[in-house]
Amino acid sequence: MTVKVAVAGATGYAGGELLRLLLAHPEVQIAELTAASSAGTPLGQHQPHLAPLADRIVGETSVERLAGHDVVFLALPHGHSGEIAAKLGDDVLVIDLGADHRLADETDWQRWYGGTHAGNWPYGLPELPGAREALRGTRRVAVPGCFPTGGSLALAPALAAGLVEPEVTVVAVTGTSGAGKSLKPHLLGAEVMGSASAYGVGGVHRHTPEFIQNLSAVAGQRVTVSFTPVLAPMPRGILTTASAPLGENTDGSAVREVYEKAYAEEPFVRLLPEGQWPTTAATLGSNNVQLQVTVDEQAGRLVVIAAIDNLTKGTAGGAVQSMNIALGLPETTGLPATGVAP
Amino acid sequence: MTVKVAVAGATGYAGGELLRLLLAHPEVQIAELTAASSAGTPLGQHQPHLAPLADRIVGETSVERLAGHDVVFLALPHGHSGEIAAKLGDDVLVIDLGADHRLADETDWQRWYGGTHAGNWPYGLPELPGAREALRGTRRVAVPGCFPTGGSLALAPALAAGLVEPEVTVVAVTGTSGAGKSLKPHLLGAEVMGSASAYGVGGVHRHTPEFIQNLSAVAGQRVTVSFTPVLAPMPRGILTTASAPLGENTDGSAVREVYEKAYAEEPFVRLLPEGQWPTTAATLGSNNVQLQVTVDEQAGRLVVIAAIDNLTKGTAGGAVQSMNIALGLPETTGLPATGVAP
Amino acid sequence: MTVKVAVAGATGYAGGELLRLLLAHPEVQIAELTAASSAGTPLGQHQPHLAPLADRIVGETSVERLAGHDVVFLALPHGHSGEIAAKLGDDVLVIDLGADHRLADETDWQRWYGGTHAGNWPYGLPELPGAREALRGTRRVAVPGCFPTGGSLALAPALAAGLVEPEVTVVAVTGTSGAGKSLKPHLLGAEVMGSASAYGVGGVHRHTPEFIQNLSAVAGQRVTVSFTPVLAPMPRGILTTASAPLGENTDGSAVREVYEKAYAEEPFVRLLPEGQWPTTAATLGSNNVQLQVTVDEQAGRLVVIAAIDNLTKGTAGGAVQSMNIALGLPETTGLPATGVAP
Amino acid sequence: MTVKVAVAGATGYAGGELLRLLLAHPEVQIAELTAASSAGTPLGQHQPHLAPLADRIVGETSVERLAGHDVVFLALPHGHSGEIAAKLGDDVLVIDLGADHRLADETDWQRWYGGTHAGNWPYGLPELPGAREALRGTRRVAVPGCFPTGGSLALAPALAAGLVEPEVTVVAVTGTSGAGKSLKPHLLGAEVMGSASAYGVGGVHRHTPEFIQNLSAVAGQRVTVSFTPVLAPMPRGILTTASAPLGENTDGSAVREVYEKAYAEEPFVRLLPEGQWPTTAATLGSNNVQLQVTVDEQAGRLVVIAAIDNLTKGTAGGAVQSMNIALGLPETTGLPATGVAP
Repeated sequence: MTVKVAVAGATGYAGGELLRLLLAHPEVQIAELTAASSAGTPLGQHQPHLAPLADRIVGETSVERLAGHDVVFLALPHGHSGEIAAKLGDDVLVIDLGADHRLADETDWQRWYGGTHAGNWPYGLPELPGAREALRGTRRVAVPGCFPTGGSLALAPALAAGLVEPEVTVVAVTGTSGAGKSLKPHLLGAEVMGSASAYGVGGVHRHTPEFIQNLSAVAGQRVTVSFTPVLAPMPRGILTTASAPLGENTDGSAVREVYEKAYAEEPFVRLLPEGQWPTTAATLGSNNVQLQVTVDEQAGRLVVIAAIDNLTKGTAGGAVQSMNIALGLPETTGLPATGVAP
Repeated sequence: MTVKVAVAGATGYAGGELLRLLLAHPEVQIAELTAASSAGTPLGQHQPHLAPLADRIVGETSVERLAGHDVVFLALPHGHSGEIAAKLGDDVLVIDLGADHRLADETDWQRWYGGTHAGNWPYGLPELPGAREALRGTRRVAVPGCFPTGGSLALAPALAAGLVEPEVTVVAVTGTSGAGKSLKPHLLGAEVMGSASAYGVGGVHRHTPEFIQNLSAVAGQRVTVSFTPVLAPMPRGILTTASAPLGENTDGSAVREVYEKAYAEEPFVRLLPEGQWPTTAATLGSNNVQLQVTVDEQAGRLVVIAAIDNLTKGTAGGAVQSMNIALGLPETTGLPATGVAP
Repeated sequence: MTVKVAVAGATGYAGGELLRLLLAHPEVQIAELTAASSAGTPLGQHQPHLAPLADRIVGETSVERLAGHDVVFLALPHGHSGEIAAKLGDDVLVIDLGADHRLADETDWQRWYGGTHAGNWPYGLPELPGAREALRGTRRVAVPGCFPTGGSLALAPALAAGLVEPEVTVVAVTGTSGAGKSLKPHLLGAEVMGSASAYGVGGVHRHTPEFIQNLSAVAGQRVTVSFTPVLAPMPRGILTTASAPLGENTDGSAVREVYEKAYAEEPFVRLLPEGQWPTTAATLGSNNVQLQVTVDEQAGRLVVIAAIDNLTKGTAGGAVQSMNIALGLPETTGLPATGVAP
Repeated sequence: MTVKVAVAGATGYAGGELLRLLLAHPEVQIAELTAASSAGTPLGQHQPHLAPLADRIVGETSVERLAGHDVVFLALPHGHSGEIAAKLGDDVLVIDLGADHRLADETDWQRWYGGTHAGNWPYGLPELPGAREALRGTRRVAVPGCFPTGGSLALAPALAAGLVEPEVTVVAVTGTSGAGKSLKPHLLGAEVMGSASAYGVGGVHRHTPEFIQNLSAVAGQRVTVSFTPVLAPMPRGILTTASAPLGENTDGSAVREVYEKAYAEEPFVRLLPEGQWPTTAATLGSNNVQLQVTVDEQAGRLVVIAAIDNLTKGTAGGAVQSMNIALGLPETTGLPATGVAP
């Protein structure tokens, strides 16, 4: 099979990572590349690491340019995907790396993002219960946010098994590429290096409703989520610390087994041996999730640590994994199983 | 007043920061410097940033060398301070930057550190209720751990005012100097840079009982603490994310006022203007604490963010601040009120 | 003496470092703070590390606001200082941290910067031959560029003593604050971290003519300079590697002595003991220069390594040092003699 | 073809990178993994990023374990490879990532490393004149040092074409993984981050004779090399700034053409478009070399900038590339052509 793909938003961080993965994908032919303000320039100016595509000229994002491909990836600011997708045929696989099609609830959408709700597409986190099935054969995929990727995988098994109360706390330390190539003073290297800082504190980060949606579905009841993102001085990676009060009848010794079972067959999720803890560096550039789980008897809480690469499993890798499932390819095709370390 | 001081452990990170502060202290004369394996070498080999002391030869740590000073700072591995302090006169101000005299409970000590409990000294975190009074005129000070410094200041006002339930969650992102100059593979630059990782997860970090002791005293009841330290790629700094369930009758709008009142007179603690969030870089090299507080209505939690420099306010700065109080000097003498940024 | 100072460009990196130093200066009263686009906002928004000035409102830069002070520091983009200085009285000490008054040659100015040449002021690098004398009592100071600061001090003794041929090579590794708070994609944290890159290669960096001017004056003949700046993932610091062919009759064993003599009386320049090499971290936040010198017999070259903090000795510290000299204060007043490390 | 390989030194940085590449190599079966002190432990403890090999138990390095493979990679401290290689059959392809077989001159070996000279093998830098031919069909390969890889490729075309005098200056900024997993204080994260430092200055770094050997062979005359390595706060990457005086009759405008020709057919070396400069991040994890060249008329020097990943092209990638050539496989097999950025 040769799949002809187009990538809109090719000059950003998500687009760049996507192209890196697609270049190594044996069934993909990279056709159209588009962008907004950098249209007309060679890709090598924006993505100097993508040597094989350095001389490709980036086109301007438009339905005309994107039409006629088997797969169209949209790595665009929120609010732009719905309209484009509507004009591409139903037979085109459209994979939205933005937020437009993640939330099922229209009110949620309007409260958190504003504007018209573009609808809700199958969710590209196949490791969640039911998600893989919904992705098979679909022609529309909503790629999860980077924070909900790590945090949902960290907590889903415990919530599904009723091990914890539905009141979770998530503190996620992220590399700065998560903010995209935005020219903001607080993202300058001189500001970022040597500094940790929190933002979007107190439930105001836009990934909060996505967390609640995912975890409530898994738990079968409304889950509250206290979510705090922390910016750390690294280009990539998310280290999630997730915890929740143990349920009244939870047997601490059963916890590990629940996690082992939940992810035993998952190619990209690895529960580390006891005593070893996840590091984001170990997942760099890979589609892997490293997990560890423990019980804090004194505090009466389950604590889970998860490491991912925000641009790979948290964005572009999740997108390619979903593409593979949607197209009926082996799920791991073209996806790096090893990190780049040290 | 000229205070003659000795520093044991002068070649480590805590000792180095202490000397940096003491060099700028107008009432201090730096006399004896001692260490263990590096005795006999010039300080400049170990602390090249301390130019004025570069040619000083470091002596071997012993009671004989330390005796005869007005103030003795002990920056030693745990288990070494008790014996030395016992042999120094009661008129010498002994300030222990290690863990030996922090815990009041002997059973706690034995469980977490092992060996004989050296006793409990006035606690060098003057911003906690009652602590400043206990430090006045004392000749023994137990300097707090770096994590309990930030975390206790973040949560004390809320617990004291009964705004939250006594079940707190603390995730603290720390620079790697917190681990000291230990030659361990996971602390190598190549491992640390570009990586975030958790350790001591699930209530097994030795600062946990210190957290519980501090917060329980403030709350007037047993407080449970879920504490997770996270190593981030920066030399210094701790960013603490602390949260707890809101009390049943807590009025969210009253929270900020409680924090404002609590720290209004504190020279080193600053509640930032609403909308501005702490960054560790802003506290680098200073004795400052930056705080911000908010209420997450959806999750029903109070969330507090605190930034400190782990080596300054979290260790050596707290030690000098305590010395100032013990000796009756103005509390801020010789302590940097500005960070070094960017 | 109490010196009333104004700082124009208070919200940038140079301005921020200057204010940090001035806050600790015993003879200075910080009066007016001005800026361009951020006028009207509190300084704490831009310089959160300067806690004591957090609530100060920044004014708009204008001659009116700056007039009436004993000292006016101008930390402005090039091309702005000349006009302002001309309108401030001759009795006001004007210290220009920008490039406008560094070059003596009008043709050089026009070639490298363009526009009208604002003239040439006494040069704020007192360690160069004759410079300290020119600064005494002056009311105009041109603060050197950060690269020429380290590079000139590295090479001046050898050139003055005729130890080397007048053909020098300088590669200077710099932290990213040297580029200022500019919102450019290549300065984003995600781009900078984990990457080293050269820029302004081949003699096109604007500090090149300043290098040539300084070194030619010292050597008493035209010196050619091959200068390459390299951006490294750190907020601050410049590590200069400077080398030149040994003169025909140079006795390698005499080299160290020449450097020792040259800087024996300099309070801020330290030739390290043999075998110890400069690190930028050791100079962080201090006005210090660390130097080491060696002879490579095989290559027939003298090699000198110099470490400075680009924002302190390389900009704001040099400015304060020059102010002290100009005003007749002890030269080291208010300047940090120790770095902040690790 | 399926090639059975053994890797000695599997727990170090070079060994880890080699395994990462070999896991993605379609013709390779990874058989034996050995180490010294960590023998008997699972590889996942030392290389957590190599998920597919996490449960492999590392054996102790010995001739017995290494024998019986088609290819044996030796990533050992210097002085250990000669003896092992002598006992492996002549039909085994032995690839030495250490220094033992790089230097042709026995006196050089003894002066720089000491001990018995193990001999000189075909040199694994196929882009040098004649090197590719020598690698074809060989059963012994000496992988170049990381610094000579970047520096030799930067200067070879100019020296071969006689564009420059044979007196070169190389300053190479390196990530800290280049020093290996050595437990030395100056390699600790807290020391490394935020700091640049030079070491091995003045021609005393052990890669110096390798530089001279490579460049003299290319130039057809003795080349002097002033080489300064600089440690920068990044895990990987080498940015080389190389320069040399222009030859008397060199036409500056011809320089670019010489470089274009030299590398036109090389799959891993890319001369960037004019105006674009190499960054190490763009080569991270890839086997690529990014080059740019310019002429500094004022200084009369040719200046070349080269970026590589020290662990990939500079070590393990060069080893795999050489293996491919030696075995008659397509040279690029299994080697990443794109970097991981940002």
